[in-house]
Amino acid sequence: MHKRFVVNIISRVLLFVCFIMLIPLGWAMSDDIHHPEVNAFILTIIIGTIISTVCLWNLRIKKGDYKKLNTKDGLAIVGISWIVLSLFGALPLYFSGVVNGYTDAFFEIASGFTTTGATIFEDIEALPHGILFWRSLTHWLGGMGIIVLYIALLPALGGNASQLYKAEVPGLSVERIEPRIKETAKHLWGIYFFLSLMETILLMAGGMPIFDALCHTFSTMATGGFSTKNASIGAYSPYIQWVITVFMFFAGMNFILHYQLSRGKLKAIIRNEEFKIYFFAAIIVSTLFGFLLSRLEMSESPFRDAFFQVISILTTTGFGTTDFEAWPYLLQFILVLMMFVGGCGGSTGGGMKIVRVYLSVKIGLSSIFQVLFPNAVIPIKFNKKPIPDKLVMTVMSYFVLYIHLFFVGTILFLILESCDIITALTASVSAISNIGPGLGQIGPTDNFAWVSAPGKWLLTFLMLAGRLEFYAIMMLFVPSAWRK
Amino acid sequence: MHKRFVVNIISRVLLFVCFIMLIPLGWAMSDDIHHPEVNAFILTIIIGTIISTVCLWNLRIKKGDYKKLNTKDGLAIVGISWIVLSLFGALPLYFSGVVNGYTDAFFEIASGFTTTGATIFEDIEALPHGILFWRSLTHWLGGMGIIVLYIALLPALGGNASQLYKAEVPGLSVERIEPRIKETAKHLWGIYFFLSLMETILLMAGGMPIFDALCHTFSTMATGGFSTKNASIGAYSPYIQWVITVFMFFAGMNFILHYQLSRGKLKAIIRNEEFKIYFFAAIIVSTLFGFLLSRLEMSESPFRDAFFQVISILTTTGFGTTDFEAWPYLLQFILVLMMFVGGCGGSTGGGMKIVRVYLSVKIGLSSIFQVLFPNAVIPIKFNKKPIPDKLVMTVMSYFVLYIHLFFVGTILFLILESCDIITALTASVSAISNIGPGLGQIGPTDNFAWVSAPGKWLLTFLMLAGRLEFYAIMMLFVPSAWRK
Repeated sequence: MHKRFVVNIISRVLLFVCFIMLIPLGWAMSDDIHHPEVNAFILTIIIGTIISTVCLWNLRIKKGDYKKLNTKDGLAIVGISWIVLSLFGALPLYFSGVVNGYTDAFFEIASGFTTTGATIFEDIEALPHGILFWRSLTHWLGGMGIIVLYIALLPALGGNASQLYKAEVPGLSVERIEPRIKETAKHLWGIYFFLSLMETILLMAGGMPIFDALCHTFSTMATGGFSTKNASIGAYSPYIQWVITVFMFFAGMNFILHYQLSRGKLKAIIRNEEFKIYFFAAIIVSTLFGFLLSRLEMSESPFRDAFFQVISILTTTGFGTTDFEAWPYLLQFILVLMMFVGGCGGSTGGGMKIVRVYLSVKIGLSSIFQVLFPNAVIPIKFNKKPIPDKLVMTVMSYFVLYIHLFFVGTILFLILESCDIITALTASVSAISNIGPGLGQIGPTDNFAWVSAPGKWLLTFLMLAGRLEFYAIMMLFVPSAWRK
Repeated sequence: MHKRFVVNIISRVLLFVCFIMLIPLGWAMSDDIHHPEVNAFILTIIIGTIISTVCLWNLRIKKGDYKKLNTKDGLAIVGISWIVLSLFGALPLYFSGVVNGYTDAFFEIASGFTTTGATIFEDIEALPHGILFWRSLTHWLGGMGIIVLYIALLPALGGNASQLYKAEVPGLSVERIEPRIKETAKHLWGIYFFLSLMETILLMAGGMPIFDALCHTFSTMATGGFSTKNASIGAYSPYIQWVITVFMFFAGMNFILHYQLSRGKLKAIIRNEEFKIYFFAAIIVSTLFGFLLSRLEMSESPFRDAFFQVISILTTTGFGTTDFEAWPYLLQFILVLMMFVGGCGGSTGGGMKIVRVYLSVKIGLSSIFQVLFPNAVIPIKFNKKPIPDKLVMTVMSYFVLYIHLFFVGTILFLILESCDIITALTASVSAISNIGPGLGQIGPTDNFAWVSAPGKWLLTFLMLAGRLEFYAIMMLFVPSAWRK
């Protein structure tokens, strides 16, 4: 690893975030200039600026040297950046005294950046506006990726930003839509920004104040889940619930498809196998849920609740309008299964991604044929094209790693907390897949305040590992990765 | 598929089982010759003999033709045999009227052959001896494999029995210990018989009557779990519990190792990675359980209970001496995890097998290195030898299929039964891994009497699929497998 580069680039990103933090500072100041949160933001910005400037000053790099950036460096930069930004982003919460300690602040902000949406706050409505805005903003930055935003907006990383891009954007094969990575990053953030603007306008049209509209837009588009209300989206009108349902669905789509749609390429979307599964799964499962809920008379608006909750969990957003723990166990379990799956590759959603789960099913089934016909060559196809053996291995490895991490996470959680098995299982999958709520003691009406400090650190680790699809975080534990 | 062969060989195996059924008939007659179970066995044997003789008569095959037997035929023979034998073996229970219907009888005997040990009987001690003996005997036959026994004892399958052998013996790569498959089968069954004899003698030395000693030996050596007592092994002395613990451990070992041990090759066992993991995992986990149970004062004999229960679950036997649902959730969950793992490859235990789980962890971790060093070739090693890429794929596919089947099983069980998620999850893994008990409504003190008929058929399917490691059962759903 080229440590000089790594620290240099992380410092730049940190400085960039200090700059972005001026926005929540603005909200805080407009609210009440004497509130402790104002000083908390100012102090944080000063600390961040000093640290990053000092690092940059001492680690100047010749422009041409950036070309040396390799895969290892890219992963390390992204992995460490996300940890540093979460540690740093927690400071305003800590300084302003809204949390019980630094662990809580770190948990909350890591949950923000990773778009998990798990909160330690028992009374969200009591929080000052600056803090509320900042936690929702971390969702938005983390959703499409803060380093991708940096690449899109700022110069100076040369032509080798693709290593960073690959490490931060989730999904199977990270496609570029433009030959230059900077252009790709610009387009993706452009679409993300445009969809966010649309949602904010539609939410405001439904009577939501601009502050709430912005915060909920950030959460929706990033498939995060933080709300500004204790009752989450249940506090709002049916119209608003439908708007958010639709935009959660958009956020769970591969953003490459949004790009192609914006170019009028409707065929691309119809031909995309992953999208078709996503679309029909969302509709069929929601409809079935709706029928069941209406037959069992478990909801006053069964179809709205069903669509909202299914899409909220499938996209790994984690917003709530109802307490789905009151639903039949079958429906609860289907929601848990969807937590494993998550949204599409290249979306802001978490989980294993539909494409991987789909391919894993195909690979599993083809292995039956392989046993029957040992000499046959059975290609695994995706979008009608055979995928290379190496990609097959990557998908399988990811699946296996995911399941192992899930079980290890559950065991560790059970060691650290005195809770039942369902709570531990769903805490683990909810953290790795960046959902937010689970079942049992972390159900849709609960929060994570009761979790011990070690338990919170564990979940934070799982959230970061899940958001960055393991490798960028796990590599930090590989000694040989640190060598030059 | 060569249907003529398939039916021919299945008929032979059926006739063979009719012959074996004379033993429980003997027990039944010595007990009380006027008991309905005597007629039930006689009727079953007559039916089986007629059907198999008629089939054999109509489907005579020239001896040389057996050489045409291919992989497909081998899988089909084993898959269909096991279904036929379970259907057929259920008849004595059905005819004698000890069950509430044919579904219950089929469930019980499939649970027997697959060495699951899940029972629908609420009062086992009320059953007549012939039936008790038969259900335990199905364990013993299923443990090392009824078709392997047929190969070992009877002539006439020519040199192509290896397809059958491969399809019935579980594990990663089925090693032969002799060049001729018949000799291998003889050796394995010989060791199995010898260990069973030893256990029976040791149990009788502890004061167990010969009937109970035989039944429990069958259950132990096959890692089954049927007992003749309602309190399972909890009804017996500490000495007997320890004897069973040790023999469960033996049964969970790769039988190739037993063979090598019998040849004095002690090094083979010390060098075997899978055995080392099995050995140390059993000891370390049991000891930790013992410490925890003794500190929490949850057991009067914490270490005996811990060793017994850990080894019972790890080997997928499913015997009980205590109600482990009263233990801390952490311990319960570790037991559930061990249900996934199971014994060693080539043992009579179920589950994914230690070797596959171990390799899946290695493959998962090596994928991290692969991402860091994209051009490096990182071989996966087992017992210090690199394993071929094809085997890596096989292991991964099996892992993926297992997890998918587990989740599908859970969902279907939740659709069919009104039970909680933990019950459904553990019913699914318990059936696929051939354990027996689970948690919730199928805990160690419960039974499967409450499960609906469709639920029982589902679990029976999962048991058979799990015992035959999926392919022999799943291929039956592949239309092209039925073509010639």
